[in-house]
Amino acid sequence: MQSPEKLRALVEAYLAELPLTPDLGSLDEPMRHALGGKRVRPVLCLATGDAIGATVENLLPAAAAVELVHSFSLVHDDLPSLDNDSERRGAPSVWAQYGESTAILAGDALLLEAMRLALTYPTGSVARELVHATLAMIGGQQLDLEGSAPLEQLHSLKTGALFSASVMCALWAADVPITEHEPWRVFAGELGLLFQIVDDLLDGDGYVLEVGEEGARRLADEAAERAQARLAELDADTDVLASIVDELAVRTA
Amino acid sequence: MQSPEKLRALVEAYLAELPLTPDLGSLDEPMRHALGGKRVRPVLCLATGDAIGATVENLLPAAAAVELVHSFSLVHDDLPSLDNDSERRGAPSVWAQYGESTAILAGDALLLEAMRLALTYPTGSVARELVHATLAMIGGQQLDLEGSAPLEQLHSLKTGALFSASVMCALWAADVPITEHEPWRVFAGELGLLFQIVDDLLDGDGYVLEVGEEGARRLADEAAERAQARLAELDADTDVLASIVDELAVRTA
Repeated sequence: MQSPEKLRALVEAYLAELPLTPDLGSLDEPMRHALGGKRVRPVLCLATGDAIGATVENLLPAAAAVELVHSFSLVHDDLPSLDNDSERRGAPSVWAQYGESTAILAGDALLLEAMRLALTYPTGSVARELVHATLAMIGGQQLDLEGSAPLEQLHSLKTGALFSASVMCALWAADVPITEHEPWRVFAGELGLLFQIVDDLLDGDGYVLEVGEEGARRLADEAAERAQARLAELDADTDVLASIVDELAVRTA
Repeated sequence: MQSPEKLRALVEAYLAELPLTPDLGSLDEPMRHALGGKRVRPVLCLATGDAIGATVENLLPAAAAVELVHSFSLVHDDLPSLDNDSERRGAPSVWAQYGESTAILAGDALLLEAMRLALTYPTGSVARELVHATLAMIGGQQLDLEGSAPLEQLHSLKTGALFSASVMCALWAADVPITEHEPWRVFAGELGLLFQIVDDLLDGDGYVLEVGEEGARRLADEAAERAQARLAELDADTDVLASIVDELAVRTA
């Protein structure tokens, strides 16, 4: 078993040295600019692989693919015509730093590089999982812009789908039979919900506006409990995943 | 052997009835709006499959995937911060009709639906081909925006790559061994060049500005000749592909 810190370091090193497609030319720099972040999803992917006894190094392309999809979505969501965010993680967002056209193309390229990484596995199953999750995310972003969808549906599409994919891609990459996937998918769904409620607590929006801060805190704790209960039922070495659930429940950034 | 008209009708029917991912919600309409066009690439894909004796119906997901990638690229290229085209094929472009944010998301979704279709094949090979071609296109679009690249490189990236993919995806979908791919790739490269030079002749730009109208016409004819010569060397029933080359050489729209 490897600690979350060790797994995070593996992801960082892999992403830092990741060769991007040479044809992308000057998009290389804005794409790498977009790749900052806490690595929650790729660490979750590696920790899932570790829990089922897979060689963590073999999961790095899948883990990085999930992170690149996440980065793609942020680059496009930050654009002026969408969320109009000129800052991201204390630095200029990609469009603010490199211009709008470059941000659109860099986002497209991040999505495609994610697919390229997901397709380094012999079957298309990692890529299929990622495509479905990303389609859900995009549908969620469109719903969000329309401004009338229930919060739960929004969260499930915008956050839950890629969280699930982080876990499921590890199973696909490690060739776990599909008959064993369902309990993992349920666990991942709880974890995605937990992540989003805590996000709302930190930002003071979403669930906090719907049920108040105390109510949102309670919902987060319940989601964390359910995630732990699901984990405990799994036939896997889930100590590190359990510590990740705890971390996500109390995170402050 | 099926005529190009018959193949085009197959593509039209398939695209008209193509179910999009339900999660995409209201993006369905702008995505379908984006799917107009001459179907040059999917017909080429089906004709290639037909030439090697594959069942054309089995190639429809690959052919449609190529067309969706083409549509994705047009939707994003038309955006105000890129080419700023408010018209496309005599109708408002997607952003002009549905707004910029919807156009960005609809483009993303078209790309992902293309991947979903490409991943309906058991292996990831069709998807891999398409990912590489699309990365080249995006690199080409970025080069074009920077405004300093040689025309030949631009054309090869922006047009040639997806033309090649139209042919190569048929080979992958029909499980043609990779050892037999190279002459097809060379043929597809000539065809992509032909298509782009004729585009320049119709638009009065690109090669026309570099070598004049007569010079560009000569280059187009030479590319058509080389494409026909390559076809003639292939061990396949290439009559329909030969008629497609002729059509592309003399097209007026």
